[in-house]
Amino acid sequence: MNRLPANLYDPKCPSRLILDLVGSRWGMLMVCSLERGPVRANALIRAIGGISEKMFRQTARDLEKYGVIERRSFPEVPPRVEYSLTPIGHDLCRVIRSIETWVVENYEALIDHSEATAS
Amino acid sequence: MNRLPANLYDPKCPSRLILDLVGSRWGMLMVCSLERGPVRANALIRAIGGISEKMFRQTARDLEKYGVIERRSFPEVPPRVEYSLTPIGHDLCRVIRSIETWVVENYEALIDHSEATAS
Repeated sequence: MNRLPANLYDPKCPSRLILDLVGSRWGMLMVCSLERGPVRANALIRAIGGISEKMFRQTARDLEKYGVIERRSFPEVPPRVEYSLTPIGHDLCRVIRSIETWVVENYEALIDHSEATAS
Repeated sequence: MNRLPANLYDPKCPSRLILDLVGSRWGMLMVCSLERGPVRANALIRAIGGISEKMFRQTARDLEKYGVIERRSFPEVPPRVEYSLTPIGHDLCRVIRSIETWVVENYEALIDHSEATAS
């Protein structure tokens, strides 16, 4: 379908909603937690320390809606639900990983600066 | 100062606050709007379409607190306030730019997917 190109600096452009999702704490951590392959729902919740059931469901639903992750449910007892990255999700993961790496690498300098200016 | 390394998957790790800031819509757009050099406060608000005065002040204060941007005020009439990236801010900008580029490049596919699954 033809539409205007994305413009993140235009408040009316729907690309902002995608930026919000892929930039969100839970979106980033969920995508990166699926990097190595499908993960069962329960294990995924545990991997993303501190996420609530509600935020888990909402984030998973949003990422699924845009085709970043896939949800498969297996008719087993007990029922098994697995999430995995789609090809576009793997591509996104690579980009998000660079943000994660940046935060981890620069964490000390950033915290040191915030503590120095607070005193 | 010695502290534990950052672990974004630990809900108690303060690195999460930094991830929230640098992943936020306003944080990302503000950092990237300063890529080419210092920008006056008013021009910066206009560049980041749709940001409120309140969110502008809060985002600028947080980014300044962690040493990502700098605020300079000049004793002029009318008073002039400029923001600019610090060296660490320029480094962050490079990483955020890759997220922005990803969203812009994949926008159509993501929106197409969300529309196809909605119907």
